[in-house]
Formats: sequence, C-alpha cells, structure tokens
Amino acid sequence: MRVIDGGITAPEGFRATGKHIGIKKVKKDLALLASDVPAKAAGAYTTNIVKAAHILWDSSITESGGNVRGLVCISGNANACTGKRGVRDNEDMAECFAQCIGAKKEEILTAATGIIGLDMPMDTIKSGIKGAYGNLSRKREEAKNAAAGIITTDTFIKEMAVQLNIAGKTVKIGAMCKGSGMIHPNMATVLSFITSDINISRELLHKALIYSVKETYNMISVDGATSTNDMAVIMANGMAGNDEITEEDEFYESFKNALYFINEKFARDIVHDGEGAGKFIQVNISGAKSDNDARLMAKSIVTNNLVKTAMYGEDANWGRVMAAMGASGGCFDPSKVNMSFSSEKGEILLMSEGEPVHFDENLAAEILGERDITVNISLCDGIHTAKSWGCDLGHEYVRINGEYRSRT
Amino acid sequence: MRVIDGGITAPEGFRATGKHIGIKKVKKDLALLASDVPAKAAGAYTTNIVKAAHILWDSSITESGGNVRGLVCISGNANACTGKRGVRDNEDMAECFAQCIGAKKEEILTAATGIIGLDMPMDTIKSGIKGAYGNLSRKREEAKNAAAGIITTDTFIKEMAVQLNIAGKTVKIGAMCKGSGMIHPNMATVLSFITSDINISRELLHKALIYSVKETYNMISVDGATSTNDMAVIMANGMAGNDEITEEDEFYESFKNALYFINEKFARDIVHDGEGAGKFIQVNISGAKSDNDARLMAKSIVTNNLVKTAMYGEDANWGRVMAAMGASGGCFDPSKVNMSFSSEKGEILLMSEGEPVHFDENLAAEILGERDITVNISLCDGIHTAKSWGCDLGHEYVRINGEYRSRT
Repeated sequence: MRVIDGGITAPEGFRATGKHIGIKKVKKDLALLASDVPAKAAGAYTTNIVKAAHILWDSSITESGGNVRGLVCISGNANACTGKRGVRDNEDMAECFAQCIGAKKEEILTAATGIIGLDMPMDTIKSGIKGAYGNLSRKREEAKNAAAGIITTDTFIKEMAVQLNIAGKTVKIGAMCKGSGMIHPNMATVLSFITSDINISRELLHKALIYSVKETYNMISVDGATSTNDMAVIMANGMAGNDEITEEDEFYESFKNALYFINEKFARDIVHDGEGAGKFIQVNISGAKSDNDARLMAKSIVTNNLVKTAMYGEDANWGRVMAAMGASGGCFDPSKVNMSFSSEKGEILLMSEGEPVHFDENLAAEILGERDITVNISLCDGIHTAKSWGCDLGHEYVRINGEYRSRT
Repeated sequence: MRVIDGGITAPEGFRATGKHIGIKKVKKDLALLASDVPAKAAGAYTTNIVKAAHILWDSSITESGGNVRGLVCISGNANACTGKRGVRDNEDMAECFAQCIGAKKEEILTAATGIIGLDMPMDTIKSGIKGAYGNLSRKREEAKNAAAGIITTDTFIKEMAVQLNIAGKTVKIGAMCKGSGMIHPNMATVLSFITSDINISRELLHKALIYSVKETYNMISVDGATSTNDMAVIMANGMAGNDEITEEDEFYESFKNALYFINEKFARDIVHDGEGAGKFIQVNISGAKSDNDARLMAKSIVTNNLVKTAMYGEDANWGRVMAAMGASGGCFDPSKVNMSFSSEKGEILLMSEGEPVHFDENLAAEILGERDITVNISLCDGIHTAKSWGCDLGHEYVRINGEYRSRT
C-alpha cells in the first residue's frame, strides 16, 4: 500500500464537486459525489438517540443492502431536531440530486453538519445542487472542493488517497472527512466519506469499515460530546476489476489495513484540528485485563476536563490522569500502575508500581511545552492495549463554543 | 424544622477548630472536630477506583459499625496516589489526633483534599494538630474556622445548621462542606461533614444519608471529573436525649428531610462556587420512563461541555441540550420532547412535541443574560422526574485549572 496524491475521486468511476451555495455566509457549503456505476455501500452511524434526518435515511439504505449512486452533503445546517419537516427536506434533497444524475432517490446518500434545530433552506439547497452537479468530475481540484464543502469550524480540509495491489490489479481508496467540534464519536464519527474501486462483498466491506472505526474514530475526543450527525460511509464500485473478495484472505487484510491507515490518519487529523486545540495528546495503555478496560481508561483520560486543562497549562499534574482512570469504569489495580509523560524533548517517569516518583520539574515543563504529548500507562495486569487521541482545553475552545450559533 | 445560626458545632457535644499550620501558603489548612461522647457514624464514599488513603480508612470504620470520637481534615494535599506511604501517613495523622483527645486511632475519621500525588508533610501536620486541639470548642467562631480549614479553591465557606423537634426533644444538625473543582460526585461527594445530637439507629443514620446524597450531591457536576477523595460522613452522638429512632416513622422522616434540605443547599452552593462558574444551571426533567432515565439525562446535560459553553456565551443553542440527552444512555422518544429555558426574565419555549419552535432571539438573550438559568424538559413518556445542577464553562475555569498545581 502507498499513499498517492488525491482525494475522494482517486478511485475509478467517482466524480465530485463542491461549492458555496448560500447556506453559510462565504465558505463552501455543498459537496456532491457520484459513482458512474452502482456501488456497494456500508456505514457506521452515531449511537446518539437523537439522530439527524440523514442518519435515519442512510442507515436504512446501507442496512437494507441497496446500491448507491451518489452522495449529497451540506454544511452549516445539521438538519437535526427538525422534526417531520427535517425528514421530508432530507428526502427532497436526495431526490433533487438523484434527478440531476439520473438515479433513484433511494440510491443517494445524504449528510449534513452544522447548527442543530434550524430548518433547511430548501430553495437554496435545491437550486444549489442543480447549479453544481454539472461540475462533477474526477479532477484533483474538484475532490478538494468537495472536501471543502463538508467542513464547518475545521481549519483545514482532510482528504487522502492510497493505492494497493490486489491480485495484480491496482485498487484505489479515496477519502475525505470533517470534524472539529462535538467530537466524541461513539460507533461512528463526524462525517467520513470513503470511496474505492475495489470489488468486495458487501459483508466484508461492512466488516472492514466497522473494524477501523472502532479502533480509530471511536478512540478520539475533542469535547466529550457525541454528535447527532456522526457517520462514516464507504462506497465500493468494483471498477478496479479485481475478482470479488468474498473471504477474509490476504487481499481482505490488505484492504482492511489500508482502511485502518486512512481512518487513523483522519482521526488524528480531526483531533489536531479540534476546536481550540493547542496540544495533541496520545494515550497508550498497556497491560490491561481486557480490551474493554483498556479502551475505557484511554478514552476517559482524553475526555477529562481536568487532564485537558492541565495539558493546556503544561502542568505535570499526573494525579488527574489517575483520577480519570479510576472513574472510567475500567478495572485495574492502582498499586501496579506505571506512568510517564513523553514528547520529542524526552520522557519522564511519574509513577512506578503505584508509588509516586520524584521528578525533575524543569524537564517536565520542557516535555509538556511541546505540541504533541504522549501519556504512557502500563497497568501490569494483563496483555491488552488501547490507544486514544485527544487535545487540551484552553481559552480558544471556550471562545469558539461560547459564540458558535450566533456567529455562523 | 428551621434553619438556625451555626455550623458543625451546633449540636450538643461537638467541638471544632480550624487553623493554618503550613501545608498551604497562607490559608487555613486544618480542621479538627471532636464529639464529647462516642458517636455513631455513616459515610458515603467516592466510587473512583483510585481512592485516597482516608477513603479506605474511613469506610472501614463506618462499615464495621465502630463508634467515632473525632475527625481530622487537612486541605492543600489530597494524600491520594501516594502509595503505601500515604496509607501509613493517614494512620499516623489519626493516631496523633486520637492521642490529643484521649481516643483510640480507630475512633478518628480522616480526610484530605488538594493536590494528588504529593507526600504529606507529616512533621508539619503532627505539630499542627498538637498546636491546634487546645482550641476545640463549641464557639460559633471555631465552627467557622473549621469550615475554612477544609476548603481549597472554594471562594466561600459552606456551613449551616438546622433544628427540629423529635417527640418533644430539640434535635440539631450541623454541617460543613467544601468543593469547587473535580466535581462530578458518584455515590458520594466532595467533603461533607455533618454532626447531629440525634439518637438514631446506625442503620437508619446510614439510610438517611445515602438517600440525600443520591438526590443531591450525585446530581451535580462542575467539570465531569469524579474525585479520588469524595466523601460525606455524618456523626450522631445521641446527646439530644430523644428515644432512639429505630423505625422509618415520622421522626425518621423529619430527620431524613432535614438532611436532604442541608445536602441540597450544599450541592447548590458547591455548584454556585464551581471553579470559574459564572452561571448556575438547573435542569428539570419530567415525564421520564424511569428514575434512572431521568437522572442520566439530567446529569448528561449539566456535564456537556457544549451546553456549558453555550450557557457561557448566553446562546440559546438548545440543539446541544438535545444532543446531550441523546448521548446520555437514558431512553426517550425525541418526537415527544418539549423544552424551554427560563430565568427571572421569563420563559421561552424552544421545542414542542419534538418540533423546533421559532422563538424571539431578543427575549432568549435577555433570559440567558441572567446568572441563574433553568432548563425545563418534559418527555411525555412517563411519570418520573429528576433535577440536576451545574454551571457554565468559561475562561475562568480554564485559567484556574491550567495552572492549579503550580500555583497552590
């Protein structure tokens, strides 16, 4: 597998575009994606009980096994908590794009991100789609435009492409995602769109997606808040021409690993671009009794406001990390814990077999002065591990979120 | 029942004092409390797996049914994550105070609050206790000194006293508590100390305490972080001379309600004094399917960073409230929800039977401009209710917690 220049249109047969149509004041707010031939699709969706209209629409398509022809995504309006009207509007949006490209509305996935509880400006959206679909193309520039059309408070676009060899055929995967606030995914994420020209069974496509989502997006947190709109979908149109993958063989493994590679990169990008984030924190847990224990603790640490503010203050307040682990619901023996903080400037041991270690405050300050900090925890209680990613909590987060709705 | 002037020494037979002994730079950092006669005791303790030494010590005393003669509490050092040495230091602290007042160390409860992971300055603490116990008295001033000795980042002391009539006898309850950061109690709280001269069975003393803790301290959150040191203990010495309460009769109900009154007041005080809190938020949930659903949702809303920053920004971003409910784990039907925000300036309906309501932004801004905001949610799905209390998240929280360890 190797990374190639490109985004969502890198695989054969996928065309995209993105445009400003007037939902937001000036930034791009529409992304369109089309596959030249029907594609298999799989999705992972938010577990929030309050689900945006597109979550209900898309999950019914991917779970019933229907093929898809395209995707329409708007940004600036979440179309969540919009009641029956929101459901109708979402369907109208799908139908509008379907008519443009000669598909059925049930072949069109939808997505939205932005403010919750606002009705969709349907005239703007419909005329926007009609005015934009003519630009659908495989051009590099249009993939970038699409990636720009799905972001909100993100400070950079997030896209990538890889290619791998499957039994002599070149298979490509392209992807774009967004996310910088309300980030605490739970069985899905943010908005993540992936295309591939691989030929693979629907079951394995779904399995590979869920595997990588669980270990990547589900292990990040910006602010502990699980969105109503989170989703990751993949569309595979088979145009690479490889024989269909129907077993968990080496080709499936290659594809699964490539997906994991993309999704881990995106998960890290999302946290790096977390609203107001000044520091990037990775937590490595090892020696846990079970995967679940390890994951609960890793996630609890990156979510804890006191850990996050200590990181912001560059304060080696490791006691807050212990308190966050203890309140996580994960099981461990505090008397066996080893803990260190590290960065490019070095590593400093803070706790050894449950006892505090006297440490050099100057070195600690130097280590925590870096942008990327790693918290290493060894529990000496088993063989299971987990990684999580988060960010600090500083004034910029408060500024952004104290005025989000009125500002946009 | 009526509120009377006084604190922890209001009930017969309880003496207290508080002093600065040198753990903190200038503020009081020691509180001592003694009962003239052995008192029954009950406690509720943090569910954090990482427990401070005093949590292990006190729970073994109250759970084995031992009588207690006193309490020693220090502030500025949490004596948590301090390994075996912390356990020995805690026992030495109990023994030192026990010798001063002619009790056994197993009759002394201990408590500590402050920075996690620092060894206790035992010489300072022991000489401090020896220099302070001579001031133990029932004087109003000494109760205040004790209440000052237990606080850390709190901006005001928290104490109160009530009296009630039990079968012709005057029974008094006195109390003090602290708490303004790492506040997300779970089956206990903060540090809350309650005395009473009531004569009541150990079982009912425990039951009344647990009841009020569950509905009060366990329903507040300042920062979503559950402390390693949280506890609420009550000591009852029987000196009021009432016949022992051994059944859940009217007298038990009076006592239980008085305890609830005190603990609800303290829970609200703690949130009002939450680190960096500028606004006080009460959530009222009604019409839930079960108590547990109602509590999960109420707690999730006051814990959600996006709700908290919206309140800070005085932004009627009610969609974030819906998202927090949906991610709470509590069960409800989004299509039946009614929601309003209210304050002294009025009330504004935001959602009606699951549909967004167009509202007057000017009135919303006026309502959210107040310090005390209430979020009212009616789920129309059952008869259960819950209340929770929290605060906003603003720059002051970040400032305080970005520099807490190095500053103290």
